[in-house]
Amino acid sequence: MTFVTEPVSVLTDEQLDTIHETAMRICEEIGLDVLHDGMRERLAAAGLTVDAERVRFDRGFVMEQVAKAPRTFDLRARNPERTVTVGGGTPLWLNVGGPPFASDVDGGRRSGTLDDHDRFIKLTQAAAPLNCVQTGAVEAQELDVAVRHMDMEYSTIRWSDLPYTTYGTSGPKARDGIAMAAIVHGGRDAIETSPALMGIVNSNSPLVWDFRMTDALVAWAEANQAIAVTPFLLSGATAPVSVSGGLAQQAAEALTGVAMAQLVRPGTPCVYGSFYTATDMRTGAPAFGTPESVLGLLAGGQISRRYGLPFRGGGGLASSNTVDAQAAAETTLMLTATMLAGADVVLHAAGWLEGGLTASFEKFALDVELLEQFGRQARGIGFTDEELAFDALKEVGPGGLYLASPHTMEHFKQWLYMSPLFTTPDFATWESMGSTDTRQRATERWKALLDSYEDPGIDDAVDEELRAYVEHRKQDPPEPED
Amino acid sequence: MTFVTEPVSVLTDEQLDTIHETAMRICEEIGLDVLHDGMRERLAAAGLTVDAERVRFDRGFVMEQVAKAPRTFDLRARNPERTVTVGGGTPLWLNVGGPPFASDVDGGRRSGTLDDHDRFIKLTQAAAPLNCVQTGAVEAQELDVAVRHMDMEYSTIRWSDLPYTTYGTSGPKARDGIAMAAIVHGGRDAIETSPALMGIVNSNSPLVWDFRMTDALVAWAEANQAIAVTPFLLSGATAPVSVSGGLAQQAAEALTGVAMAQLVRPGTPCVYGSFYTATDMRTGAPAFGTPESVLGLLAGGQISRRYGLPFRGGGGLASSNTVDAQAAAETTLMLTATMLAGADVVLHAAGWLEGGLTASFEKFALDVELLEQFGRQARGIGFTDEELAFDALKEVGPGGLYLASPHTMEHFKQWLYMSPLFTTPDFATWESMGSTDTRQRATERWKALLDSYEDPGIDDAVDEELRAYVEHRKQDPPEPED
Repeated sequence: MTFVTEPVSVLTDEQLDTIHETAMRICEEIGLDVLHDGMRERLAAAGLTVDAERVRFDRGFVMEQVAKAPRTFDLRARNPERTVTVGGGTPLWLNVGGPPFASDVDGGRRSGTLDDHDRFIKLTQAAAPLNCVQTGAVEAQELDVAVRHMDMEYSTIRWSDLPYTTYGTSGPKARDGIAMAAIVHGGRDAIETSPALMGIVNSNSPLVWDFRMTDALVAWAEANQAIAVTPFLLSGATAPVSVSGGLAQQAAEALTGVAMAQLVRPGTPCVYGSFYTATDMRTGAPAFGTPESVLGLLAGGQISRRYGLPFRGGGGLASSNTVDAQAAAETTLMLTATMLAGADVVLHAAGWLEGGLTASFEKFALDVELLEQFGRQARGIGFTDEELAFDALKEVGPGGLYLASPHTMEHFKQWLYMSPLFTTPDFATWESMGSTDTRQRATERWKALLDSYEDPGIDDAVDEELRAYVEHRKQDPPEPED
Repeated sequence: MTFVTEPVSVLTDEQLDTIHETAMRICEEIGLDVLHDGMRERLAAAGLTVDAERVRFDRGFVMEQVAKAPRTFDLRARNPERTVTVGGGTPLWLNVGGPPFASDVDGGRRSGTLDDHDRFIKLTQAAAPLNCVQTGAVEAQELDVAVRHMDMEYSTIRWSDLPYTTYGTSGPKARDGIAMAAIVHGGRDAIETSPALMGIVNSNSPLVWDFRMTDALVAWAEANQAIAVTPFLLSGATAPVSVSGGLAQQAAEALTGVAMAQLVRPGTPCVYGSFYTATDMRTGAPAFGTPESVLGLLAGGQISRRYGLPFRGGGGLASSNTVDAQAAAETTLMLTATMLAGADVVLHAAGWLEGGLTASFEKFALDVELLEQFGRQARGIGFTDEELAFDALKEVGPGGLYLASPHTMEHFKQWLYMSPLFTTPDFATWESMGSTDTRQRATERWKALLDSYEDPGIDDAVDEELRAYVEHRKQDPPEPED
């Protein structure tokens, strides 16, 4: 699925230069704290000035390293037909990831479980507009935090055959994900040739690379796995309250992250990430869909293109606590901006509710509906003679009706999109059916989607080896804080 | 309010040519039925082939006439500061028009009244993103259909000082509107110099100009008032089920309408109108926001630019029966497409629900919220030194927090949009406040907006003359069917 139009430009060339210049001044004059001894040693050895934990990133170094990252790369799926070239014109669309809570109309909002995780993975596999899985769709909170990353990683690998992002929120967890991907693809050499997972690295904004994330970045770069380097900017909280200031900070954080990955292993596939959101200063919570969030996202895409890197940004992000008009408006605003920004990687495209605290099954159905419609938009307008319909116009003639005309009967099922979720019963019929709103109908939709899920299967030997790896590692788990 | 980006192109130049060529073939080879004797006589006198009611519109004639319409024109408001140059970069944003029903959370859905009409006019006057009023916001159903157009016209003129569209759905009603505008602006000569109202002409699609609409078009053109010529296309019902076929039909209908207005009075301000919607073949109802509706709208804007005419299209259109996620998604999709299409005139921008059968007060509040956000987007990103925030970044430094920083405190109220309707309480707080959804909060919003309304006043003599005109005409009403 691509977009109905080319990416838009909201910055002039001069403004792009200004963002770049400010980002470089941040790197050089302010510097970033790198809380990882090994990485600081590498950076010092590369000639950068290191003062305690503060590293001044020389712009020549940064841009030289960034230039080593590929403009496009393949992200392998275990089903080779599902492999996607990131940055190649087909965006990656992924489910929500990270929420501690799950919710649906029947069961309400509760702590997430592995069963919820399995169901979100199956829904993602079943949803036509989604072509990539995000591990950690919802936290399997009933399991030990030190080891549950492997249960969720297994859930992703077992129940889908799509490319995926790995859970790794630390070096040891990242290494578990790499080991499991190596099992799936026939060994570490195989995945080093072509990446089999994508890791998400968030800087600890503002301007800090903490130990755990840097350690994960090192692990992925050593294995040549893809890395989406994503500053986590809440305007007015973890970033300045102005959009241009936030964009400069974002560039400084993203580019230094990419540079560190390249320093570990030149050519590591990297994505320029944007998670740019305004803060609602009344509550301190992120406010998705607001004008500043939209502008930050649009500009982020434009900046990533300047640097020649694939762009991760946007998603079906919403602040609302329920699947109501606010949730739909916020989501539609963000997904539209995601398209207009020309995003290559779209995490949280389906299921995100309550500012990311809840993975909602009904929201998943709503988002998939919107993605389906955007995909239809992107197909554009057909211009065959049959579509131009001159003969039909002539046959029906002035004052005629197309409702039952042969042309309409022959083509409407193919040419007219009729939403399974958005319906148009007349008011009296709608009332007689119980005046259901979209949230209630969405319950039927996600259940139908889950019913349509087909298990892609998995090679028995691979499955056994994966399970054995997880069992073995559970005997000797990483420290919870790792 | 303008848009965050330039209008997009969804058609190639070759496809534009194909639409044009097909439209011209429709005009010449199929022709249109013109059910107005006087107009057919004018067209025959201009050299067109007339066969009973069927008129073959020669392409040379059509394009020669269309070229006489101005690219931009002023639409006068009785408050000269509110006059807008149509096609000049500032779109007209108007309230909903036409619904027989009104609804709000307190009173439910019921037949519209003049009191409802007054309140929608006041809300439009009070809503910052709206800069033009549509008469007939809701039908004042308690009044005699033969004369209530004047009560609604008076409601528009009395309670707002914005430019407006007139009610006229027939020649006599159009002439009443012209007479009332002449009273407001000091005589017919004054309004003939610069139009004081805009009429909406819908062709009776497919390819019919009926008597009433043509008669209204003649009345407005004779008075040099603005005319939005808007084919009413429901794909698969009043138009072919294919988008490109519908676009060709739309061009044929719109251009012949513009040509007829120019034939009556060269230079009459005309707008190229699009009301292009897919039909939900399950119900026969219009389905707003669908991919075909969006594509038809986007292409319509592009086609109007080819012809050098201002574009009327889009709006806050939704099919949903209630202010839920479907309504918000449909509306956001349509409003986004409205912007991307580069619309100059946006009818039904606020308050449209249930496929246009209901004028909803809560929907009005939702739509105004969205328009406010689009307006903020369009302001773009600021690049003052204070906004680039290098000094603030340096002061806060790596690992700092912006929440209480001087830079944030000084600027957040100006730079961060905080929605009065879309809120972000944490889940527990939200539950304790009754788990209200957007629809309920929207009730507070429209009531607050109505409370903020300020009566612009009206000159006593003008008011008296308007009332006298209406009273006089009620003694001798036009026939209901006129």
